[in-house]
Amino acid sequence: MLKPLNVGMIGYGFMGRAHSNAYRRVNNFFDLEHQPVLKAICARSADKAKAFADKWGYESVETDWRRLLERKDIHLVDICTPNNTHAEIALAAAKAGKMILCEKPLALNGPEALKMVEAVEKAGVPNMVWYNYRRVPAVTLAKKLIDDGRLGRIFHYRAKFLQDWTISPELPQGGTALWRLDVAAAGSGVTGDLLAHCIDTALWQNGAIDKVNAMTETFVKERKHNLTGKVEPVGIDDACAFLARFHNGSLATFESTRYARGHKALYTFEINGEHASICWDLHDLHRLQYFDHRDQGLTRGWRSVHVSDGDHPYMGKWWVPGLQIGYEHSFVHQVADFLEGVAKGKAAQPDFRNAYQTQLVLDAVLASAKSQRWTEVPKG
Amino acid sequence: MLKPLNVGMIGYGFMGRAHSNAYRRVNNFFDLEHQPVLKAICARSADKAKAFADKWGYESVETDWRRLLERKDIHLVDICTPNNTHAEIALAAAKAGKMILCEKPLALNGPEALKMVEAVEKAGVPNMVWYNYRRVPAVTLAKKLIDDGRLGRIFHYRAKFLQDWTISPELPQGGTALWRLDVAAAGSGVTGDLLAHCIDTALWQNGAIDKVNAMTETFVKERKHNLTGKVEPVGIDDACAFLARFHNGSLATFESTRYARGHKALYTFEINGEHASICWDLHDLHRLQYFDHRDQGLTRGWRSVHVSDGDHPYMGKWWVPGLQIGYEHSFVHQVADFLEGVAKGKAAQPDFRNAYQTQLVLDAVLASAKSQRWTEVPKG
Amino acid sequence: MLKPLNVGMIGYGFMGRAHSNAYRRVNNFFDLEHQPVLKAICARSADKAKAFADKWGYESVETDWRRLLERKDIHLVDICTPNNTHAEIALAAAKAGKMILCEKPLALNGPEALKMVEAVEKAGVPNMVWYNYRRVPAVTLAKKLIDDGRLGRIFHYRAKFLQDWTISPELPQGGTALWRLDVAAAGSGVTGDLLAHCIDTALWQNGAIDKVNAMTETFVKERKHNLTGKVEPVGIDDACAFLARFHNGSLATFESTRYARGHKALYTFEINGEHASICWDLHDLHRLQYFDHRDQGLTRGWRSVHVSDGDHPYMGKWWVPGLQIGYEHSFVHQVADFLEGVAKGKAAQPDFRNAYQTQLVLDAVLASAKSQRWTEVPKG
Amino acid sequence: MLKPLNVGMIGYGFMGRAHSNAYRRVNNFFDLEHQPVLKAICARSADKAKAFADKWGYESVETDWRRLLERKDIHLVDICTPNNTHAEIALAAAKAGKMILCEKPLALNGPEALKMVEAVEKAGVPNMVWYNYRRVPAVTLAKKLIDDGRLGRIFHYRAKFLQDWTISPELPQGGTALWRLDVAAAGSGVTGDLLAHCIDTALWQNGAIDKVNAMTETFVKERKHNLTGKVEPVGIDDACAFLARFHNGSLATFESTRYARGHKALYTFEINGEHASICWDLHDLHRLQYFDHRDQGLTRGWRSVHVSDGDHPYMGKWWVPGLQIGYEHSFVHQVADFLEGVAKGKAAQPDFRNAYQTQLVLDAVLASAKSQRWTEVPKG
Repeated sequence: MLKPLNVGMIGYGFMGRAHSNAYRRVNNFFDLEHQPVLKAICARSADKAKAFADKWGYESVETDWRRLLERKDIHLVDICTPNNTHAEIALAAAKAGKMILCEKPLALNGPEALKMVEAVEKAGVPNMVWYNYRRVPAVTLAKKLIDDGRLGRIFHYRAKFLQDWTISPELPQGGTALWRLDVAAAGSGVTGDLLAHCIDTALWQNGAIDKVNAMTETFVKERKHNLTGKVEPVGIDDACAFLARFHNGSLATFESTRYARGHKALYTFEINGEHASICWDLHDLHRLQYFDHRDQGLTRGWRSVHVSDGDHPYMGKWWVPGLQIGYEHSFVHQVADFLEGVAKGKAAQPDFRNAYQTQLVLDAVLASAKSQRWTEVPKG
Repeated sequence: MLKPLNVGMIGYGFMGRAHSNAYRRVNNFFDLEHQPVLKAICARSADKAKAFADKWGYESVETDWRRLLERKDIHLVDICTPNNTHAEIALAAAKAGKMILCEKPLALNGPEALKMVEAVEKAGVPNMVWYNYRRVPAVTLAKKLIDDGRLGRIFHYRAKFLQDWTISPELPQGGTALWRLDVAAAGSGVTGDLLAHCIDTALWQNGAIDKVNAMTETFVKERKHNLTGKVEPVGIDDACAFLARFHNGSLATFESTRYARGHKALYTFEINGEHASICWDLHDLHRLQYFDHRDQGLTRGWRSVHVSDGDHPYMGKWWVPGLQIGYEHSFVHQVADFLEGVAKGKAAQPDFRNAYQTQLVLDAVLASAKSQRWTEVPKG
Repeated sequence: MLKPLNVGMIGYGFMGRAHSNAYRRVNNFFDLEHQPVLKAICARSADKAKAFADKWGYESVETDWRRLLERKDIHLVDICTPNNTHAEIALAAAKAGKMILCEKPLALNGPEALKMVEAVEKAGVPNMVWYNYRRVPAVTLAKKLIDDGRLGRIFHYRAKFLQDWTISPELPQGGTALWRLDVAAAGSGVTGDLLAHCIDTALWQNGAIDKVNAMTETFVKERKHNLTGKVEPVGIDDACAFLARFHNGSLATFESTRYARGHKALYTFEINGEHASICWDLHDLHRLQYFDHRDQGLTRGWRSVHVSDGDHPYMGKWWVPGLQIGYEHSFVHQVADFLEGVAKGKAAQPDFRNAYQTQLVLDAVLASAKSQRWTEVPKG
Repeated sequence: MLKPLNVGMIGYGFMGRAHSNAYRRVNNFFDLEHQPVLKAICARSADKAKAFADKWGYESVETDWRRLLERKDIHLVDICTPNNTHAEIALAAAKAGKMILCEKPLALNGPEALKMVEAVEKAGVPNMVWYNYRRVPAVTLAKKLIDDGRLGRIFHYRAKFLQDWTISPELPQGGTALWRLDVAAAGSGVTGDLLAHCIDTALWQNGAIDKVNAMTETFVKERKHNLTGKVEPVGIDDACAFLARFHNGSLATFESTRYARGHKALYTFEINGEHASICWDLHDLHRLQYFDHRDQGLTRGWRSVHVSDGDHPYMGKWWVPGLQIGYEHSFVHQVADFLEGVAKGKAAQPDFRNAYQTQLVLDAVLASAKSQRWTEVPKG
């Protein structure tokens, strides 16, 4: 019999759905000791919470997250609220002894994140941050190829996350759907929202970043604010590009924007090593491009690996070779790994401490954009 | 409150999983009147049925499908067994007044299929065949573009379904996992297994086929049989290619094989019309290639449409633009449409009668391969 | 010092340009014993011949090809006239002891081609047919990989040549630019014009074809004729598709049309072998797609080989790795190989006899389309 | 009759071949008033000059470029020597009243380039720098689309030029073939060699760059020097990446390296505008990727424009739609435009003054890499 692991979800937006979906599906495909149970959904609006509970099968509803934390029947708290609320909830949840899964970015900045790290470590509760892209099978495979030494010495790392959904100046900021444009709720723009993903993946694949040099831009300077109803200055960065030097000597460029026509969610990275190179692109997420210079010269070329075979990461759990899975499956994988970690007493990554590193890079990026200088990333 | 619709599933293989997954997920994403309930799983082995029930949450287990049909609490029977058992089960299920969803191909041949059509029509029960690829969003979009007249007069239709998993002569035939290689269980090889999909899509998109001219081949002439333990002749077609003429005057080529190195499940079609052309490929299923000659000359080109926007078929129900769904979602869409049909009293397609047309084309293809002549497809 | 080899060109159309260009360029890039000299251009219109001579540097002009053949200073005759004139000119040129390069298809049909073969063999003159695509570096590389046994036993061969330039019914037939639509001048439509290329490549790569089964269609039944000024029936095939069985046991599909929107000159082939597969496409002619199943599983994928390295066929003669050459270079390569053959006394391929095989397949295809039956290809 | 324009070429390396090829071919395809005549090739080694002359049809040989400049029969001097010799030759050639075509980069730095600009302007001689990529048809088309306002306000510009040919530490520096690794001859590494191309194209397409922020790296610190025979420090930059801000408000990233496995000559740019985006890649140089947000939503996608139609820039001069040209044709186009400029008395671009702007950006990039600060680009 599977052990029930009762989930209390806070927030019911896009991520609330993605995580709920993952909890509901994981046991159909993965052999685990635990079974997540959708115990309670928490949202300020009782109506919306109720509707969400009906849709997803949550057993109960809360409208105050502090109440949720008091409940004995909740084992795990999942924080899917805007960035500026992560810290307060997480600190309380740690105190309450709950396992904590927190949406990314972990916090508004490094110091805030550090408090969260210290809280969960002090409480000794399992914790994890939803940097889900590590567990797209092609990305996991890329990591394995790097760890196996296939690339040799790394010379270059490039990552981009390009979108185009905020080009219209008519788009307002703030409120439920658009809090990502509101600096008070989001902390930053593309840097915390999109580059955070790129940095998490990059640190995992290529080690520490020593220093960065960034520029940011806000193309649309003011937008109507949904909460005040007034036109207000836009405080977030619409675009951010930075140069970086990794500790291993490799050079990097990172870029993100929401003003790149034609790209809905083009998260892409490329890594060039002494022997081999790797490319990946979220728009065709099941493909890994791999070039190995050690291939015989006449037939050397970029290989388009359709990461759908049974021996590819996670894929043996799903369908048959050639058949794709999608975006949402990365969350299922993350839940599976988290539950396996819980069963074995070994933290699934990225835990809060690991995600804190990303926060330090984000801070350095934003500081550099401001100072217009190379900025060192402190060691976490 | 959603009305429960109790499912009795027969078979627990690859398709048993794909369908169970669809029933479990559909209400999380689609607004429907009914909610499928996983009431009973039926398989000859009680152990295997039990394990499957635990994995997927079926409430009960049956080991005799006739018992399942007798149960009053079962509203819908889903037939996921090998092809040679479809007819017998379906005829009985119709008699028992159950709704019936049947895996493709509907039957071993046209006459058998016709009996099934007549049975469900006589019984007046909702029925459908799992030609799931119609509901990959890019394929549904292709159909819409054709129906909207974007292509104009159609000149050419091409479809292929290429795999490479049976090249090794060491692979045995027969038994649970490999019944598709056993002519007694499968009826035919790639023709019924893979070309059936191509034909279903083609008839739906491009109308009736008048005549066909086929060749088939069995590359590996004998294989060990898992049921007898002896090396036995292989009765299925390993490969099949055919020419066809559609009733609308367009010319077609169809091909399928399990001997095409490098292709796991390359189902692809291309349609060339007077004004525009369309291409699709299951290996990158969320992309539709579209060429419109009416585009201004300088910038005319094949458009790679990432079918992931909110106004693309079905996509508004899932995540956000740019994020992919996968193979399994086509089944969720089919269940959603079926349930909507049940609610509205309008049959979702392809129902048995519609799928019967595909059966007639399959028969003509196999007959042509035998006679080595052009063979007319009778009107169903 | 290079030995001059004096060229007399008959015809000044598209192919007259392509060949002239090849003669002018070959010695800049290839080390050869001979140097083609553009001695005379022959065309019925003196004005047009003169203009062409000025453009390309021909030293003299003729308006009667019989006069050209009488000239002692002409070593080589290049036949670039419509298909229905090839035989007469070639027979006379052979009699006159000239080397002969003839545009494809060699003749209107097999018997005519056979006379040409016998004539050049009797005369003992070097001869070659301009099936230029064999010498696109990626295609030559494909041949090498096959000959090296990389693919193992061949299961499937597929070739297509798709265009879209005759969809408009307003396009007339006949005359200088449009003789390819006039059956009297061209002999057939896409079969002789486009499938001839596919068949030449296929026979070269995959050996003899035993039998074929074809269908043809003429979508636009009548067009204005440029020579008569009247609307006349269209005698050519607008589209042709055929099934084939190769002598080595592999199955094939071939297709060509001028009614495929979005394709200007999509000549593509794919070969599936036991161990490896190959794909190529004229629209991106420098790329060869190669899949090798013997690659390690995790990183197995289609390799996009950019055939531009110094050790790729012919490429060491041109620029540096990564830089492309184009369509016209295949003709330069063919001249280089022809001249090397002349120097070594070894016939460059395809010579007339070799091209005669293609003619026999073309005849069988057209006969099959007429009889609607499988038709055997006689051994040449 | 065409007017002869006598060319004196200095240097016989890779670029000597590319330019000679262009002079020889231009009149076969373009209608011009002038015809380049290959009058003299100049190289220090008489033997090598003679061999080159034989290969390409130069009428005479010089071993001292000052002698070449003295010759009255030379109208145009083409400078294809290492970068550190451009200025001296160009100044003398201007004084001698010759037209001057100079390989890129124009000079070792801005001040040197300025002297060259002043010299040719004072002498009033036609002049041009071989930034050939502007005249790849797809790149020219991109420029046209921008100028036509298709993109609207530009938000982002990205360019990369990636190669992988210097990864081996065994590769020496200096001498005939490898002077690009020798800082004395080349001035810089990838910055002057590769980024110069990117910058030239970018300034042309997107206007002036206001400031840059760069990092460079030399991965292999010392290499054997071919001229001294000793292992010596490597003075060039192996890789360079920089951030930039254009005067029009758009943000840019530029990167070049010779350490990117899998890329032979991947020059690529992407431009994101308010309405549309454009991508191009030298490895598939005849394709332009174009996304137009104004396309109807359902069929919106990146268009892969095969830039081979008769109305595409320059393409009407070559073959027929669908057939590619290659790298070398960009030089033919540049000669054609230069000659047309000479005939019309209008300078073809980039002339020396225009190329001087690129030099100023290069200087700022190298200065920024050194100072590790944002560096303004002076107005030229």
